[in-house]
Parts: sequence; structure tokens; C-alpha cells
Amino acid sequence: MSGVSQTTVSRVLRGHPHVRQATREKVLRVLAETGYAPSAAARTMRTGSTGIIGVLVGRVTNSFYPELAEALNATISEAGQQMSLWLAEEGTGREAGERAALAALRTGSLDGIVFTTATAESAALSEALVQHAPIVLLNRTLPGVRCDTVASDNVAGGRTVARYFIAHARSEVGLIGGPLNVSTGAERERGFVTGLAEHDIALGPATIARGEFTYEAGRTGMEQLLGHDSPPRAVFCVNDVIAFGALDAAREAGVRVPDELWVVGFDDTAMASWGAFALTTVRQPVREMAQTGIRLLLERIDGHFELAPRHERLAAELVVRRSTGGAAPS
Amino acid sequence: MSGVSQTTVSRVLRGHPHVRQATREKVLRVLAETGYAPSAAARTMRTGSTGIIGVLVGRVTNSFYPELAEALNATISEAGQQMSLWLAEEGTGREAGERAALAALRTGSLDGIVFTTATAESAALSEALVQHAPIVLLNRTLPGVRCDTVASDNVAGGRTVARYFIAHARSEVGLIGGPLNVSTGAERERGFVTGLAEHDIALGPATIARGEFTYEAGRTGMEQLLGHDSPPRAVFCVNDVIAFGALDAAREAGVRVPDELWVVGFDDTAMASWGAFALTTVRQPVREMAQTGIRLLLERIDGHFELAPRHERLAAELVVRRSTGGAAPS
Repeated sequence: MSGVSQTTVSRVLRGHPHVRQATREKVLRVLAETGYAPSAAARTMRTGSTGIIGVLVGRVTNSFYPELAEALNATISEAGQQMSLWLAEEGTGREAGERAALAALRTGSLDGIVFTTATAESAALSEALVQHAPIVLLNRTLPGVRCDTVASDNVAGGRTVARYFIAHARSEVGLIGGPLNVSTGAERERGFVTGLAEHDIALGPATIARGEFTYEAGRTGMEQLLGHDSPPRAVFCVNDVIAFGALDAAREAGVRVPDELWVVGFDDTAMASWGAFALTTVRQPVREMAQTGIRLLLERIDGHFELAPRHERLAAELVVRRSTGGAAPS
Repeated sequence: MSGVSQTTVSRVLRGHPHVRQATREKVLRVLAETGYAPSAAARTMRTGSTGIIGVLVGRVTNSFYPELAEALNATISEAGQQMSLWLAEEGTGREAGERAALAALRTGSLDGIVFTTATAESAALSEALVQHAPIVLLNRTLPGVRCDTVASDNVAGGRTVARYFIAHARSEVGLIGGPLNVSTGAERERGFVTGLAEHDIALGPATIARGEFTYEAGRTGMEQLLGHDSPPRAVFCVNDVIAFGALDAAREAGVRVPDELWVVGFDDTAMASWGAFALTTVRQPVREMAQTGIRLLLERIDGHFELAPRHERLAAELVVRRSTGGAAPS
């Protein structure tokens, strides 16, 4: 009816760029008039593939996740696929979000899923593993998990921070940590404690504050640490957004950074370089994490179910800024 | 084979919460062993509905969009649907992202789409309008567009800022604006200029800086404004992230906020209240925007194509903080 070839109609429907605007409009007009719509359902039943990869993220108000999502989107686009992002917030919402995305995978609306916020308690994830579903854990991982995982070397990163503090004679240290059931924070904390132990320094309970991975937890944590009789002179926060809260709390308490207090974060989000914070932090290689994760996932989707689970760890390096006076890495 | 009812199997597949863990595992084990997987494809062909609403967002590294996405996710969940987020970044990526999401809508993978970053040049959007696709424009809108739109009253918000500056005798004003083809920034700017004109104040070219909606543009813009012979004493930035860059540039130039310079933003993202910025800003009613947008969209999806396009404008109010010395709203 539109007087063009089947190929052209197909291209218009797929949103192919190489179709002239006039042709595209003619085809769409005719399709709209006739009420014709070839369904993704029909295509999926034919090819068994949707070309869509699901990505599960947690609190997108922690800017690390939007940055990771953008890196994943770029990588997935380069692979000729589309990304569909599903929010699975911390707490009760996460289980529901994970369950919904896994249902979409099981019933063929997604080809595979990238989990970025898995925790040990995730029942939905356990079920997916039983079914050998094409999934990859990115950023957060689980001990002994039977699927592909990609994460930064968080333990080494935490140890680097401990050695940095000690090399610059800042041995009165403190830590603001996250929930211990989350691998990223727990591993960074473990590395930090290990690095201190190498120099016979132990973190007493009075020098550890713990909360969620939020700005508010950073504020509260720093207020707590600064309230002690001998407050720390160097504080490691297990992610950047905690460190931003910690810096603001120090500022309000009149404690001068970096003269009286050093603060170090983890992630190197874009905001860490902003003048308001100028935060020394451990950089996660976000683009490389995304590329590695998608490569592993696409291999699974392509039917390589027989491969043993692969566990990739990527190096994370210290980036020095004003919050530690620009002191050279050790 | 699992010894349970068809209803229970169906519930397990949909991720329904009211299924005992042991039953769920048994059903999934049998399904995995038999290789059975009822496809979304089959369901969509049967019901004509996916239960999934697509949301197109731009640069998620501007934290307004993650906050809007979380509000949309909560609203869509409350309506018993799932949200699938599609990144359509500014520039060449946006057209591709929009095209892909619209292809997913056309072929039945999505029930409807929320556009949050439409611009007048969007060819994909024009095509969707021709086809009477179930879409809603949220946040950004277009003049005379033939579909439902929901946005803050940006013009009134900009005018409020102008009147606030004048009421406090800060009439040496400046503006850091965005690209003029984007409705949000253009409307806020128009309101600001109108409010100044009511008091016979004109914004000369030397008092306007313009760039993208980014931190970097805010820095550059403020450096430019401060470089003039008679720098402004009050600057309106058309969104918060521009204002954060502007504040950092002022800090580095040694210009004291609020004594020597007032800075006001627009959005009231969570970061605006952080101690590092304490930004006076115009609050967008994000939750209400999400609820209104989803209500209109669900009506369209339910088949109310005959309704004339509806255009909702929601009030945006000034929130006063330290960047204007906490001076009372006029």
C-alpha cells in the first residue's frame, strides 16, 4: 500500500537510520491507517532473541550508579543491543525489582540481566542461578557465587588507602563503613583493616561508624567520629557519597580539611573532582567494568552455558586531590 | 510434574509474592529440567499488554533525572506496572535512543512511553505523534505539541526569582542559561526576563552566559560573568547542576556567597540542600509530576485516544537557603 519494498518497511519498523524521511513518513502513515503492527512477540517467537539487555540498579541517587548505567548503555549500544534499566531499590523494593526483571528474562522480554546491587540475601538471584539464566554480577558480588562476576579489586583499594595514611604519618585513623552484607563496602573495609594491621594498627570500635551508602550516613558518621575524645586525623569512607557527607559535617564542625583531617572516598564519581569537594578517592574503572561485564554476558547469551563461572577483578587506583592536601600516593 | 496447580505455576512465572518459597523452588526446578518457558511473546499476543512502561531520560549524571526516575518508578509500581528506563543522551545518542524505544512500543514490548527530554528537533517524537502512540511528555514540552504534557510552571518560577532579587535590592543581575531549543531552560529564562522587565530592568548581553545543563557550563558561565567590569550581584542559573558549578567558580575566584553574590538554581535536587552548596532554588514537584504524567499515560493506554491533548502545569515554589543569605521570599 505504501509502494515500497518489504525490506524498507522492515527497516522503518526497526528504526533503521538509512531510510529517507519522506519514505519513513509514508510507511508509518500507511501502517497507522491500516492499524498494522508487527509485534515484538512474533519476532521473539521466531528468533528467540529480543536484542534487549536488562540492567538492575539500586539507588540511582548515589551518582555512581547513573555513571555505571551510562557506561553500560554505551557498551550495550556498541554491541548493537539495547539497554533496559530496572530500578531495584535497597530494602523491600529490591526483591520486587529483581523478581520482575527475572520474570521478564524467563518469559523472553530480555536476553540477559546485569545485576549491580546483589546481596547475599537475594532470593530472586538464587533462583536465577538454579536455572542457569544468562546473568552477570557487576560491581557487587557474592562469595562463592556460581555465575560470572566482575568487580573492582576492592580489598587492594582499601589496603592502598591504609598504606597511604601510614606513609604520611596519619595513623590516627577512622572508618565510615556500609552494611556488612554488601560486598563492595565490606571488601574495602577488610582491605583497609588488613593494611593497618600490617603496621600493627587496630581500628577500635570508637573509630568505626557504620550506616547506609548515603550522604546522610556520611554526615552522621563523621559527627560521631569527631565527637570522641581523640578524633581521627584521617578517615576512609567506603564510597564517595559517604565522603561528601563526611566533608560537609567536618566543615560545619569547623574542622579544617586537609590540615586537621584527611578524608578519602571510593568510586571517583564525577562529583569527586568538583571544587566543593576535591576528594581524594580510589577510582573504579567504570568503563572497563561495563565492557568486561557485557562481554561475559553476551557469551552466556550466545549459548556458552558450559563455561565454568568466571570471576574478574579490575585494578582500582588512588586519585589524589585537595582532601588529603594533594600528598603523593605511597 | 511439580504436583501444583496451573495457577501456582503461573504465579511463580509472574514473580507473584504469595507463593511459598519451597513451592516456588520446586516449580522452577521442574521447569528448568523440562526446559519449559512460557514466553512473554505468547502472553503479549494473547493479552495485547506487556505491563511495562518505558521512560526515556537524558543525561542521568544530572541528578534531577535519577530523582525523577525514582519518582516514576514508585508511581508505576503503585499502579501495578513495571518501569523500563531507556537512556537517550543529549546529542546524536538521543535520536537513536528515542527511535529504539518507539520501535519497542510499536512492536509491543512496551505499553507506553514517558519522554522527559523531548526537543523541538526530535524526528522520532514527531513520528510517534503521527501514529497517535500512547506517550506523554514530562518535564520538557514542546510548543503546540499534539499529545499530553506535564511540566512545572517554569515561566512563573523564573519570574519569582526576578521579583525575589528586586525585592532585596539585588538589581545587578546575571543569568546562566541553557540551549534555547529546550523548553525548561527557555521558559525559566523567559519568566526571569519578564519579571525584570516589570521593573524596567533589561538583561544586557554581557550579563547572560549560555551553555549546556552541566556543572562545567556553570563554572565557565560564572567565570565569564565575574570577568566583566561590573559583575552581577545576583545570578539565576536555570538548573541546579549549573548553579553548583557557578558556586564553585565563585568560591575559587574568592567571591563571597551570599555577601557579595547571590546564586539561585532551579529543580531542588537532593544535593541543593547539602552543606557544600545550601542552594536557594525553585522546587519542581517531582512526585506530583510523576503521578500526573502516569495518570494521563495510563488513560491513553486504556484506549482513551479520543481525548484532546491535555497540558498540565504544576506550581514550582522558591526554597530559600544560604546561597541568598536565607532572605525571605518576596
